[in-house]
Amino acid sequence: MAQNLPVSPLAPAAFPDLPVISGVRFSTCAAGVKYQGRDDVMLAVLAPGTAIAGVFTKSQTRAAPVLDCQKKIGTPSDAGAAILVNSGNANAFTGHLGQSSVQEIVDSLSTVTGVPAQRIFTSSTGVIGEPLPHDRIVAKLDELNDALSDTGAQAAASAIMTTDTFPKGAARQVTIDGTPVSIAGFAKGSGMIAPDMATMLVYIFTDARVEQGALQSTLGALSDQTFNCITVDSDTSTSDSLLLCATGASGVDATGNPAFRDALHAVMLDLAQQVVRDGEGATKFVEIRVTGATSDRDAKTHGLAIANSPLVKTAIAGEDPNWGRVVMAIGKSGAPADRDTLSIRFGDILVAENGWVCPDYREDDGAAYMKQQDLVLAVDLGMGDGTATVWTCDLTHGYIEINADYRS
Amino acid sequence: MAQNLPVSPLAPAAFPDLPVISGVRFSTCAAGVKYQGRDDVMLAVLAPGTAIAGVFTKSQTRAAPVLDCQKKIGTPSDAGAAILVNSGNANAFTGHLGQSSVQEIVDSLSTVTGVPAQRIFTSSTGVIGEPLPHDRIVAKLDELNDALSDTGAQAAASAIMTTDTFPKGAARQVTIDGTPVSIAGFAKGSGMIAPDMATMLVYIFTDARVEQGALQSTLGALSDQTFNCITVDSDTSTSDSLLLCATGASGVDATGNPAFRDALHAVMLDLAQQVVRDGEGATKFVEIRVTGATSDRDAKTHGLAIANSPLVKTAIAGEDPNWGRVVMAIGKSGAPADRDTLSIRFGDILVAENGWVCPDYREDDGAAYMKQQDLVLAVDLGMGDGTATVWTCDLTHGYIEINADYRS
Repeated sequence: MAQNLPVSPLAPAAFPDLPVISGVRFSTCAAGVKYQGRDDVMLAVLAPGTAIAGVFTKSQTRAAPVLDCQKKIGTPSDAGAAILVNSGNANAFTGHLGQSSVQEIVDSLSTVTGVPAQRIFTSSTGVIGEPLPHDRIVAKLDELNDALSDTGAQAAASAIMTTDTFPKGAARQVTIDGTPVSIAGFAKGSGMIAPDMATMLVYIFTDARVEQGALQSTLGALSDQTFNCITVDSDTSTSDSLLLCATGASGVDATGNPAFRDALHAVMLDLAQQVVRDGEGATKFVEIRVTGATSDRDAKTHGLAIANSPLVKTAIAGEDPNWGRVVMAIGKSGAPADRDTLSIRFGDILVAENGWVCPDYREDDGAAYMKQQDLVLAVDLGMGDGTATVWTCDLTHGYIEINADYRS
Repeated sequence: MAQNLPVSPLAPAAFPDLPVISGVRFSTCAAGVKYQGRDDVMLAVLAPGTAIAGVFTKSQTRAAPVLDCQKKIGTPSDAGAAILVNSGNANAFTGHLGQSSVQEIVDSLSTVTGVPAQRIFTSSTGVIGEPLPHDRIVAKLDELNDALSDTGAQAAASAIMTTDTFPKGAARQVTIDGTPVSIAGFAKGSGMIAPDMATMLVYIFTDARVEQGALQSTLGALSDQTFNCITVDSDTSTSDSLLLCATGASGVDATGNPAFRDALHAVMLDLAQQVVRDGEGATKFVEIRVTGATSDRDAKTHGLAIANSPLVKTAIAGEDPNWGRVVMAIGKSGAPADRDTLSIRFGDILVAENGWVCPDYREDDGAAYMKQQDLVLAVDLGMGDGTATVWTCDLTHGYIEINADYRS
């Protein structure tokens, strides 16, 4: 952690037991990129034949490692592959020096591991605009390579944390043609979370075999339903990266398999929701369900307008059932809405309908509901069949404290 | 005030001396709509022949008084006119009851003042979703009518406050063809400020004569350069309304007069900036100047992305010259940007250029600059001739305090 932040009250009880994914080995080390006294670099090495898909931030000022990954992703290869990630420095807005830092790391890691440079992907997360001290990472590559182990996922998930207060992991298993296939992944992210295409840093591994093109298209579609449906603070990172690696070591072809897709969706949603649960300063986890919109796209626009509204988020922090602010957010979203067909529910409580507060609604009921830690806020536009669900957290003093004097 | 909030540290030293505008009379009273022990209703009565232009929120869930004003605005008339405003209740999302509350007030005021209902404009500001107790206002209309005076503008500016910590007034005089013409106005607004077409509540009066169509088009154009360039919290009100009334009592025709337009622009910008200076919890006033964008529209998109970023706003609150967050906001805005042609200045200090931190930049200089109360943050995209300037404030614990447990 960047600071000694208390663990989020919304954190899961424990890091899950991640299954070993055959064909993937991990190691971590303390390179002292910025943080002292903790691991800050993780390496994953993938067996030859692994298919890798990725989605990345759409930011126009994206970081050097993101640009490098985007150049490389999507080319099928039978070679092995590697992923190296550091925390403490984002290597973003570091000019041409940023690109040469990436190149130095990639070339050195290729020499150490024997993995071709074209198959080495890097990410960096932390402060923007400071040169990455890549020498500190390069000096540790032999140590990292020697320490590779197939059980290092939890340590890897911890090494990539910045303002995160807990490491985030998720896994599912699914049986295809009688053979078990595993999916395991981890993520980091807490602030600057309004992913646009992917989120922060996420790495997911499976021993299924999936054809490269199918892996990429499935990843894109599922990202839109998971990581692209969360927001902590409406700010989009310069470094968002999500890599999905299919080693094929199980010998099972999961290309197009619906059960595999469902399991992958579950892992991605689990990780995305954990990012929200570690939202900077968060004390409430909020699911916003929008139905009855003129299209799915319009439903998502309304959902994100509510989820990103500082007035809605502060009301939730104050446990105030202030549904008027929800009406405000819908009104400003830019997507079609009709005051007189709108209804709003807090959990099962019908709060507003037909353009006004529900006659049976009692403010005490709303106030009691808002005291829960996990909230569901449902809006029906009454106009069409468009639906979307997005996830967010509240906006608290903790967010101000973390960000008014923080450089990760 | 809704609560006993301390006066914003960014407040002007005093309310300005507003000139009497011939043809306009004001009164205020304490109707107890919600607040106790303070005036909460203001009435302005305008002489026959006054031209009235207006711009209003684009919210799709706009309040009943806004809908009523929009129906009436723009029709030339030789009759007198009246404006009635209450604070404490926004009469928004109050269904058909909301419209009948407006009608009750308008009809009764027409009877009391003799002004035709078609020329009576109302606004309401405060909590959303509670029925407006219009009877309390109707009961005070005789008292209001009897108390009309041409010097009541400051009391009127105070009566319409909600979370505002100071009343906001501005005036300019300009001489046309040897005759002095005056413009005076007042505004309220502090939170839910990201105007989209107009802002919160603003009333501006002039004794110039301006043709109705010209008055409306000038008001629209100047709104885009003033009220539509401010943001406190990215949330757009359901009640934003700006009315501009030209009584013509000076006998001077200012239609198309550039000096009049400049003076009107100055009054509008002054009031808009005062709204930012009273932003909920604000401790810093920030001007964001964007140049070199591919168009003026793109420049404004970048400017508002910076101004609305919670991470930029909390960095400013923490007096942290965190220009990396400015890069992030530009990257996510959606408008074109090129990392390698971007430059960023804090005041006169060149912080970043050519895709990286400026070699001469010293963090101590940036940190010293950020301690100022009024800040200028300048971004040049290096791509074209598009420019825009927007104004905002920082995001502090004060904003959370005011909004985590507040219903105006």
